[in-house]
Amino acid sequence: MQDIYIAGGAMTPFGRHPGVLAPELAQQAILKAVDDAGVSLQDIEAVYCANVLGGMILGQLIVRDLGLRGIPVYNVENACASGATGVHLARHALLAQQYETVLVFGIEQLTALGGGTIPLQRNDYKTECYANAGMVLPAVYAMRGTRFLHERDATPEDLAAVAVKNRYHGTLNEFAQQRTAVTAEEVLASRMIADPLTLLQCCPSQVDGAAAVVLSTRRPAQAKARAVRVLSSVVVSGMREQADDDILDAEITARAARQAYDQAGLGPADVNVVELHDAFTIAELLYYEALGLAPPGEAVPLLRSGATRLGGRVPVNPSGGLLAKGHPLGATGIAQMVEVMWHLQGRAGSRQVEGARIGLTQCTGGGIAGVDHAASSVHVLGV
Amino acid sequence: MQDIYIAGGAMTPFGRHPGVLAPELAQQAILKAVDDAGVSLQDIEAVYCANVLGGMILGQLIVRDLGLRGIPVYNVENACASGATGVHLARHALLAQQYETVLVFGIEQLTALGGGTIPLQRNDYKTECYANAGMVLPAVYAMRGTRFLHERDATPEDLAAVAVKNRYHGTLNEFAQQRTAVTAEEVLASRMIADPLTLLQCCPSQVDGAAAVVLSTRRPAQAKARAVRVLSSVVVSGMREQADDDILDAEITARAARQAYDQAGLGPADVNVVELHDAFTIAELLYYEALGLAPPGEAVPLLRSGATRLGGRVPVNPSGGLLAKGHPLGATGIAQMVEVMWHLQGRAGSRQVEGARIGLTQCTGGGIAGVDHAASSVHVLGV
Repeated sequence: MQDIYIAGGAMTPFGRHPGVLAPELAQQAILKAVDDAGVSLQDIEAVYCANVLGGMILGQLIVRDLGLRGIPVYNVENACASGATGVHLARHALLAQQYETVLVFGIEQLTALGGGTIPLQRNDYKTECYANAGMVLPAVYAMRGTRFLHERDATPEDLAAVAVKNRYHGTLNEFAQQRTAVTAEEVLASRMIADPLTLLQCCPSQVDGAAAVVLSTRRPAQAKARAVRVLSSVVVSGMREQADDDILDAEITARAARQAYDQAGLGPADVNVVELHDAFTIAELLYYEALGLAPPGEAVPLLRSGATRLGGRVPVNPSGGLLAKGHPLGATGIAQMVEVMWHLQGRAGSRQVEGARIGLTQCTGGGIAGVDHAASSVHVLGV
Repeated sequence: MQDIYIAGGAMTPFGRHPGVLAPELAQQAILKAVDDAGVSLQDIEAVYCANVLGGMILGQLIVRDLGLRGIPVYNVENACASGATGVHLARHALLAQQYETVLVFGIEQLTALGGGTIPLQRNDYKTECYANAGMVLPAVYAMRGTRFLHERDATPEDLAAVAVKNRYHGTLNEFAQQRTAVTAEEVLASRMIADPLTLLQCCPSQVDGAAAVVLSTRRPAQAKARAVRVLSSVVVSGMREQADDDILDAEITARAARQAYDQAGLGPADVNVVELHDAFTIAELLYYEALGLAPPGEAVPLLRSGATRLGGRVPVNPSGGLLAKGHPLGATGIAQMVEVMWHLQGRAGSRQVEGARIGLTQCTGGGIAGVDHAASSVHVLGV
């Protein structure tokens, strides 16, 4: 099968960029990614734009002023997994030999929407009923946190420790919105959002950002660093009723990960660095198990061991994750890949995971009544 | 290259379906399409949902109750060309041997939005400026109509004749919103929308509808009729400034068509039936030339000859087109393919184009200041 490479990538700082129009924000990432990949805009044969809330034909609006006109532009959406879905679909086209080199970017501007829990599922009567009864996304994760604390040998400090770790990582990441460290006490003392999740246990919601990658069937000679290979790419949708099932079973993510490991012909023990979807502290713990980084039931011991902190055996969210970066929906999945790419290329600076050869990215989102989550996407990248 | 088939398809009646939720509307088309294709829901390996205004993760919301859970669901958007884009991207995946059988559906519910010119481009400062100055889509096409009447040997009756033809075709189509014929006098006397385009020269905007196709790498034995082959599939974006260029040159569509003919290894003379994007009467005339059905400058003679009317040499919009069916954005591109499929399979009933072997579909939309249109998609289907 055709090798698929990420030839280059870039992201904007994630944060509040009020007054910056979408084309300007996205173009920052796009131009840097193209330059990073050692190609020119003229080499781009198609464009994939990942975005959730920005309105119709956003991709074309963004690339218009770059002179990227005439080529196919595809706008794709899959909630939090939009960016990764863009890469996934682009890979289909490259495998089908439709293009050699394409641009995939993601962008979201949440600042203008005011933050908080975005009225996401107003297009679904079932999920809106749930939301009106209080079942918004933080509440869903709060229930997971509550159940977790009930069933496991774990304390609120263990949840907080995820935020402490990732906020520490964020101090090393110029692209993160949150650049200051926090203590467990500060995390637990921050405003309660949905018990047991305090404010600092939820990814920031007032954030704008964009990220871009150039996917290619080749390794451009002029790239800033050696292109990394996409070893596997998976997108799945959820399949569980929320009412009856074990809410600690991150089934959709576990399934996506199994498929991704199979596709790549390797396993969790081979992974050197991970960027996963820590929209809430509890999420990271559950994903340790879903991604096979920890055996079932062993998420807290893994975290406590320090293995997932920079300097440990398998650093998770060296970028600071969503907790430090924020979560501009369309951009997140691609920003995760850019971070992992940097590590695989030895370009992650003070965050560098030494000798990283295999990296994994995961994003899961779009809570829907009756199917758990809409989409989960896992990618495995390698040198 | 792997053969790609439309194994089956279906559409809902296009019209006002107030109070019908998106899942219910789309499932009508989906279930009929799956049945038509002679496959079962369990054979579907991935789902592509084409929609513009329905909100996030609409695809997953729609297939949830069908038990189509767990498989990848992709939500795609490209304005009026969304549905065709869904088929185009699905074809990539099939060519890449990722799946054998997938579902592609499109849906739009405009009735709830009240009709008229939807505030489309509020996400673009440039296009919004133009819109505030009066440059909304009907006005753009009105300018084309005005220029056309000025430069060509054509009269307002020639524009009206497109509506007369397509509304006549619509009387034969149970799926069309508008089921009554109109005369040229009635068309010209209808309320002026943007001179010279009167109400009956604009596709209805208060319409809901869904359409679905099953794409496969094989021809299922149990299909209701022999699967048609997708001979070519093209999506392009626009590239022209509107101010300086010849507004009668439907460049984006002409380019898409050239690529589609090349890919299919045939030419306009080989086409037996066409479903094109008659959002306005003038559009059909311009697309005759862009699609090579008429030589440059010869659109009106082609129409006057009767060649594009049912019974003529190359019937255009036997379904009644957008003018009779209405234009539920996400569904349109797929409904066009379903119509052509029926003709190629000899199942178009009273609309049947005898001996049709090659059909073409085209949709073009998403007006943006500075690039003309966001997306045009052309497909060529054959027995």
